[in-house]
Amino acid sequence: MALLLDTLGDRVLLGEAIPESCFSDWTGHAACRPLALVRPTSSEEVSRLLRLCHEHRRAVVPQGGMTGLAGAAVPNADSVAVSLSRFTGVESVDRDAATLTVRAGTTLEAVQNAAREAGFRYPVDFGARGSCHIGGTIATNAGGHGVIRHGMTRDQVLGLEVVLADGRILDLMNSMIKNNTGYDLKHCFIGAEGTLGIITRAVLRMAPPQGETHTLLCGLPNYKAAVALLHRLRGAGLALEAFEVMWQDFYTMSCDWRDSQPPLPTSHAIYVLCEAEGDANHLETALEAAIETGEVADAVLASNIPQAQALWAIREATGEFPLKLAPINFDISLPIPTIGDFVEAAGEMLQQRWTGISIVNFGHIGDSNLHLTVDGRSLAEDAPETHHAIEAEIYRLVGEYHGSISAEHGIGLLKRDFLHHSVRPEAMDVMRALKHTLDPNDILNPGKLLN
Amino acid sequence: MALLLDTLGDRVLLGEAIPESCFSDWTGHAACRPLALVRPTSSEEVSRLLRLCHEHRRAVVPQGGMTGLAGAAVPNADSVAVSLSRFTGVESVDRDAATLTVRAGTTLEAVQNAAREAGFRYPVDFGARGSCHIGGTIATNAGGHGVIRHGMTRDQVLGLEVVLADGRILDLMNSMIKNNTGYDLKHCFIGAEGTLGIITRAVLRMAPPQGETHTLLCGLPNYKAAVALLHRLRGAGLALEAFEVMWQDFYTMSCDWRDSQPPLPTSHAIYVLCEAEGDANHLETALEAAIETGEVADAVLASNIPQAQALWAIREATGEFPLKLAPINFDISLPIPTIGDFVEAAGEMLQQRWTGISIVNFGHIGDSNLHLTVDGRSLAEDAPETHHAIEAEIYRLVGEYHGSISAEHGIGLLKRDFLHHSVRPEAMDVMRALKHTLDPNDILNPGKLLN
Ligand SMILES: Cc1cc2nc3c(=O)[nH]c(=O)nc-3n(C[C@H](O)[C@H](O)[C@H](O)COP(=O)(O)OP(=O)(O)OC[C@H]3O[C@@H](n4cnc5c(N)ncnc54)[C@H](O)[C@@H]3O)c2cc1C
Ligand SMILES: Cc1cc2nc3c(=O)[nH]c(=O)nc-3n(C[C@H](O)[C@H](O)[C@H](O)COP(=O)(O)OP(=O)(O)OC[C@H]3O[C@@H](n4cnc5c(N)ncnc54)[C@H](O)[C@@H]3O)c2cc1C
Repeated sequence: MALLLDTLGDRVLLGEAIPESCFSDWTGHAACRPLALVRPTSSEEVSRLLRLCHEHRRAVVPQGGMTGLAGAAVPNADSVAVSLSRFTGVESVDRDAATLTVRAGTTLEAVQNAAREAGFRYPVDFGARGSCHIGGTIATNAGGHGVIRHGMTRDQVLGLEVVLADGRILDLMNSMIKNNTGYDLKHCFIGAEGTLGIITRAVLRMAPPQGETHTLLCGLPNYKAAVALLHRLRGAGLALEAFEVMWQDFYTMSCDWRDSQPPLPTSHAIYVLCEAEGDANHLETALEAAIETGEVADAVLASNIPQAQALWAIREATGEFPLKLAPINFDISLPIPTIGDFVEAAGEMLQQRWTGISIVNFGHIGDSNLHLTVDGRSLAEDAPETHHAIEAEIYRLVGEYHGSISAEHGIGLLKRDFLHHSVRPEAMDVMRALKHTLDPNDILNPGKLLN
Repeated sequence: MALLLDTLGDRVLLGEAIPESCFSDWTGHAACRPLALVRPTSSEEVSRLLRLCHEHRRAVVPQGGMTGLAGAAVPNADSVAVSLSRFTGVESVDRDAATLTVRAGTTLEAVQNAAREAGFRYPVDFGARGSCHIGGTIATNAGGHGVIRHGMTRDQVLGLEVVLADGRILDLMNSMIKNNTGYDLKHCFIGAEGTLGIITRAVLRMAPPQGETHTLLCGLPNYKAAVALLHRLRGAGLALEAFEVMWQDFYTMSCDWRDSQPPLPTSHAIYVLCEAEGDANHLETALEAAIETGEVADAVLASNIPQAQALWAIREATGEFPLKLAPINFDISLPIPTIGDFVEAAGEMLQQRWTGISIVNFGHIGDSNLHLTVDGRSLAEDAPETHHAIEAEIYRLVGEYHGSISAEHGIGLLKRDFLHHSVRPEAMDVMRALKHTLDPNDILNPGKLLN
């Protein structure tokens, strides 16, 4: 500690001075006071810190805005937490290149604002925008609302600056779309949850601002029809901004929670809430054809913003889950054609073991992403073991369907022991080898993601 | 060799039986008969071959369609060339998932056709489509015509199967858009030019078919106006399929080569040939605004296919370069805002050293990609040393401008000694460490990309 204070002086907080906010992430899981909290104000300070910890084999836990949902930024009592919260700011906005250069501690919202002020948009967006760091979104390869059109955070990153475990500063600050000069190393660090290096700066792409969009709710006879509609709309020259599939259980429950009349009767097996940019005529033509073929049974097109918001309110019932259900949430991916079957299989499997249990489902199926929620209220006993058993069963089934146990939120601590359901042993070995190459003393976020 | 024949029998060709087509790639550079040519018919055979070569520390050179432009697939006399030409075919097309599963030896054209037959398109396209392998396009992260809209080959790859240097088969055959389960290892192999593993299979995304497009040629006062026009059109809700910038020298020369009247007078500093999908009204409105602000001085919109083809013919003069010039081609990238200055600086620099030399320029500037061509006819002596000296000067300047010495074609043998202009020493060290981790005996395409 004396060495740490010598090297980084007032960047270091110890003991009682360490704020509770850095004991755990959004999940509150395994909250723990770290040995120290260091808040560097430059890449060089991060480098000095890592060189020291590398030499002394001291665990380092990178922390962003602590909004993660996998326990990936949770420190333990022997580790030094490093927060990028004092290395913030948009360094430059380049309108001609349509890029931003930012420091890792900048919030996602600040990045979005800088893009907007320049006449563009930064298309990654989700609820935690005001507190998560751009560095955290890169380290978790965050998704969110815009993925169907713009891809994940990975797709926005052109360049990175990363401090390696031994303190070397790796300058990968590319700002070009095309650059085939050897291994594209930035991809090693994106989504690596702070286990391979500390991200200090990034070059990000900006997208054009959003154009006029149309919001549509459809009732469909089955899941297959939803997939057909997805491709029909994409093929009609429309840019989809959202394609949210709600299963009947979800839709009915959400409509019950609202006082007003449901926009469509609750008799359809599947509902799709769709937002599309493009020519309204193209949308109407595509929709007529979908009705003709029976793909769509009924539909309502919002004709103004309040109407669109009323449609979105149904899908946004997820915000009320923590109050109204005792939710066990799953953030999983499955090959698009199998999602319908998976939902049925998961329901049956859970019913057999926990009679009367109920699940509600919606998904961004254009992204292969299913959000399955188990309503824990129906469980006889809400013990952590039951919770764990349900997770184990669902993740096992995800593995059988060749799905992913984490679509967006990452592995961290909470899913680490389930990772083998989605990653083959040879790939796990290569991940370990990569980890050992870049962090031979295993100081960077040890025990997260891999064990 | 006896061991090789024992292990792989009639998959092995030796001596005179080895066809010349595998001595060098499209460049003809350093043509050489390898020790053996092996043509495996399955991933298991690739695995057996690599296990053997790994044990015996025998160099292995992966070969696709031999259309590469960097000498990356050129064997030497001690090496075993491995061609995937007998491991071909589209294994499955999944319309619901909008994915294709293909074997590495399949030609790009066969992949495009399979996508088209399924009602989609595979958006990577370039002249060598009929002979290059999809595996080769992945190993080089090929670009081509569709990049501005659809990205590079990397952006189409969802999953890979790769045989590692020691023969382990790495199954990364993901088919999902969202999958945050640890390090995304496929990116290590994409663009690695066969130095980290042999790609045997891939899961690729398909895009919706192309909609109605509009083709437009504009004359502009300067490069900055071209960048402004790019963002204006993107912000107008149009999907750009091409945005080709031709400098005056290029345009004038190309028009001279054609018999007919130039579609626009040759007096503008910059010409943009643009292809856009979307509402014609949006295009016209955006164009009118661009004329109003002086960004665009003059414009012609093709009103039928022959007219569009005539506009494209001007840009496609590049096909005649080998016949009419003695071209030295550069495939470089630069930060978009600097391309205009770079073109001037490169011209002046070359003039100073080789008086009377001429260069012609065009670029996919939305992709940050400049194709600069030196007309070697004006050189007093066309010695290889002069050629090399010109390359050295251009790549040095690219480095000064923080550009990339290879936008698309890769490093291979031909650019290996210039790589330091675009890649920092720490990054080079990490590349070497990654290489050593995945290929400790240095058998995979040794001496390519890295030295
Ligand atoms: C209300 C809410 C909604 C959300 N919605 C979504 C959503 O729609 N889609 C989605 O994908 N996620 C979502 N998330 C989770 C998402 O992963 C995080 O919000 C965000 O990406 C994490 O950012 P953070 O800065 O808070 O990281 P933290 O939680 O602090 O850390 C997350 C991980 O990143 C590492 N890390 C942080 N900074 C760095 C750095 N500079 N260098 C290296 N490693 C670093 C940490 O070590 C840890 O492993 C949501 C979270 C909340 C609370
Ligand atoms: C007329 C023409 C036009 C072109 N246009 C473009 C263009 O617009 N954009 C662009 O980006 N490129 C272009 N190229 C070059 C482009 O790189 C290649 O055409 C193509 O990507 C290489 O494929 P290939 O199968 O021929 O590979 P090869 O030339 O055989 O090999 C190229 C590299 O890939 C490796 N490799 C091949 N197969 C595998 C495998 N299965 N596993 C691991 N490594 C492998 C080789 O070892 C080598 O390093 C063009 C080439 C030509 C001849």
